[in-house]
Amino acid sequence: MRLKAEIYISLKNTVADPQGQVIKSALNSLGYPDLEEVRMGKFITLTFNAKDIKEGEIKINEMCYKLLANPIIEDYKFIVKEL
Amino acid sequence: MRLKAEIYISLKNTVADPQGQVIKSALNSLGYPDLEEVRMGKFITLTFNAKDIKEGEIKINEMCYKLLANPIIEDYKFIVKEL
Repeated sequence: MRLKAEIYISLKNTVADPQGQVIKSALNSLGYPDLEEVRMGKFITLTFNAKDIKEGEIKINEMCYKLLANPIIEDYKFIVKEL
Repeated sequence: MRLKAEIYISLKNTVADPQGQVIKSALNSLGYPDLEEVRMGKFITLTFNAKDIKEGEIKINEMCYKLLANPIIEDYKFIVKEL
């Protein structure tokens, strides 16, 4: 079964995000003063094969934990759907 | 009104993604051979104030176009919701 996963990785709320702060200042200078917070993360799309969606979700969770995210400082969530 | 936007930025399909290829090889070596394609993008969350969701969406679209994404090589989509 061909599956597509969309993975969203973001820094935990307690972790400082200097890149987000720089984006916030840049947007402020561009004329958007009403910003509270900007946080930068990663968005990974993955097409792969698995027996079913359940197996696909288990695989993606493993991949996130082992390689894609750093579970100490990052949170991740994902969606797996059929292609 | 306090709003939260989630912005997903990804490279257009026609643009090569060397970072995604490296992640794919790394996952292959970790024991996931069934991958077709991996593509890396950005995931930005933004909390801000606007009159309503409609105005919020217009603002976010401008921010994406002007600063957050590079419309020549990247596609973006976003969701704006009330906090």
